[in-house]
Amino acid sequence: MSLLAVGTLAYDSIETATERRTDLLGGSATYFSLAASRFGGVSLVGVVGTDFRASDTELLRSRGIDLAGLEVAQGKTFRWSGRYEADWNTRHTLATDLNVFEHFDPKIPLAQRAARFVFLANAAPEIQARALAQVTKTDFVMLDTMNLWIDIARPALLEVIRRVDALILNDEEARMLTGEGSLLRAATKALALGPRHIVLKKGEHGAFLIGPGAHFALPAYPVEEVVDPTGAGDSFAGGFMGHLASEAGKAGPVDAAALRRAMLHGTVAASFCVEGFGVERLARTSRAELDARSAELRTIVTV
Amino acid sequence: MSLLAVGTLAYDSIETATERRTDLLGGSATYFSLAASRFGGVSLVGVVGTDFRASDTELLRSRGIDLAGLEVAQGKTFRWSGRYEADWNTRHTLATDLNVFEHFDPKIPLAQRAARFVFLANAAPEIQARALAQVTKTDFVMLDTMNLWIDIARPALLEVIRRVDALILNDEEARMLTGEGSLLRAATKALALGPRHIVLKKGEHGAFLIGPGAHFALPAYPVEEVVDPTGAGDSFAGGFMGHLASEAGKAGPVDAAALRRAMLHGTVAASFCVEGFGVERLARTSRAELDARSAELRTIVTV
Repeated sequence: MSLLAVGTLAYDSIETATERRTDLLGGSATYFSLAASRFGGVSLVGVVGTDFRASDTELLRSRGIDLAGLEVAQGKTFRWSGRYEADWNTRHTLATDLNVFEHFDPKIPLAQRAARFVFLANAAPEIQARALAQVTKTDFVMLDTMNLWIDIARPALLEVIRRVDALILNDEEARMLTGEGSLLRAATKALALGPRHIVLKKGEHGAFLIGPGAHFALPAYPVEEVVDPTGAGDSFAGGFMGHLASEAGKAGPVDAAALRRAMLHGTVAASFCVEGFGVERLARTSRAELDARSAELRTIVTV
Repeated sequence: MSLLAVGTLAYDSIETATERRTDLLGGSATYFSLAASRFGGVSLVGVVGTDFRASDTELLRSRGIDLAGLEVAQGKTFRWSGRYEADWNTRHTLATDLNVFEHFDPKIPLAQRAARFVFLANAAPEIQARALAQVTKTDFVMLDTMNLWIDIARPALLEVIRRVDALILNDEEARMLTGEGSLLRAATKALALGPRHIVLKKGEHGAFLIGPGAHFALPAYPVEEVVDPTGAGDSFAGGFMGHLASEAGKAGPVDAAALRRAMLHGTVAASFCVEGFGVERLARTSRAELDARSAELRTIVTV
């Protein structure tokens, strides 16, 4: 396997302006892996409780996701609940119960320690660092984080940021991490923390990437109706890393053109994600659908 | 002359989080013409008061803007003052004094009545309709408006919208005009009002265009520091229409590819506009600077 994801599997309860669903399969590693799995093999490292549904394990397995690194611990699976305002721009976290994730200590199976592409999903920086210490032959490691860690664990976060190839942030996180109001300046300042690339997600407003001599911007795919934005960022990362890893067999090192194609596929994966509640739309997205929408988005942005 | 703009010339007083300037040259027709003038001839139809500074007339003339349709009326020039919040997303209008613009009756000089490209800047729909009635050989008419007219003059506005080739709106106006929360749906619904094309401006988040079989989206050019966003929308329209008109000599009818290039040049014109207070940066932008930044933006979005 050349692509590895370390992160959460969760049961989410989500309220939107029009609907309410409970105990949906979610979590950063889940969304990431489902999006990435359409481009090739992906291994997942995470922990669930004994209440994790066999049907959910089966769903992941049916998508070709390798679960050798999925630990089942005594206790309950991580739970999150949140509510979105009608304009989607505001999300209120109603409850976070770490449950078995509280004592998660990532153990990467031997077979996956040589993974060339690694995604360290949002988690405490110490957990991310412990995962990173176990992989030895990476070409490209992408790290995600959140405002909580920027706030309470900045030194440990900076330490792990320094060691990855790409940092993926949303606009709020970028501003918080760097203290810069201008997103472009924030991204530039984040680059100085060590990663070669910064990917900035702006939700419905698209995403951009900056790196050495590279600046790439892409609008979001125009989705007619957002049903639930949960997991869009992790789906973006999954499409991005999945596509990057799928090309790595053919090409040599990751170059700017490959990163641009990765941005395109990340954007498209996120667009499918938001069209359904939880993973329901993403999980049944075919490679043909992804490719067709990528071609369409490419046309949409061609001057 | 093949490009004509009908709109306001104004003196603006602007407060940002860091600075305050009074009686700056502004107005929709001013920004539009300054942006368009770098691509070829543009004629301006509007009205100013006897207090309009000779240096401002000179500035416009020095950019090759034809002022045969600029009326000087007894009284004061239109004045607007506003204040921006630190994040630029909120603009408070502090005062609007129509002054001589209150009784503006556009009189398009005979020589400009055959203009092929026409921009009807934001004004009362009745004024826009009177201007439109005077032009007879247009290839492409673009109409701008604002929330005020959507609110208080909807029937007259719909009447004039029906007769133009393109309607340009920001996100708030699109939602207000159509009652649709989703921007894509709002744009689709606006198309049904008659124009062949809808251009949707999203400020720092870029712009998109929809039309028959065409959907084109572009992020904004990444400006490092916004100084004053006043006039960005009219500068966008100026770059858009200026470029479209400049190509019309060569090509035949306006096609999708020409519209995509127009979006690119509109975006770039707006990016220069916001880099200075009022028109100060836009007015000294050279064609070479515009072209270089357009090439750069094209690279930024190329997948």
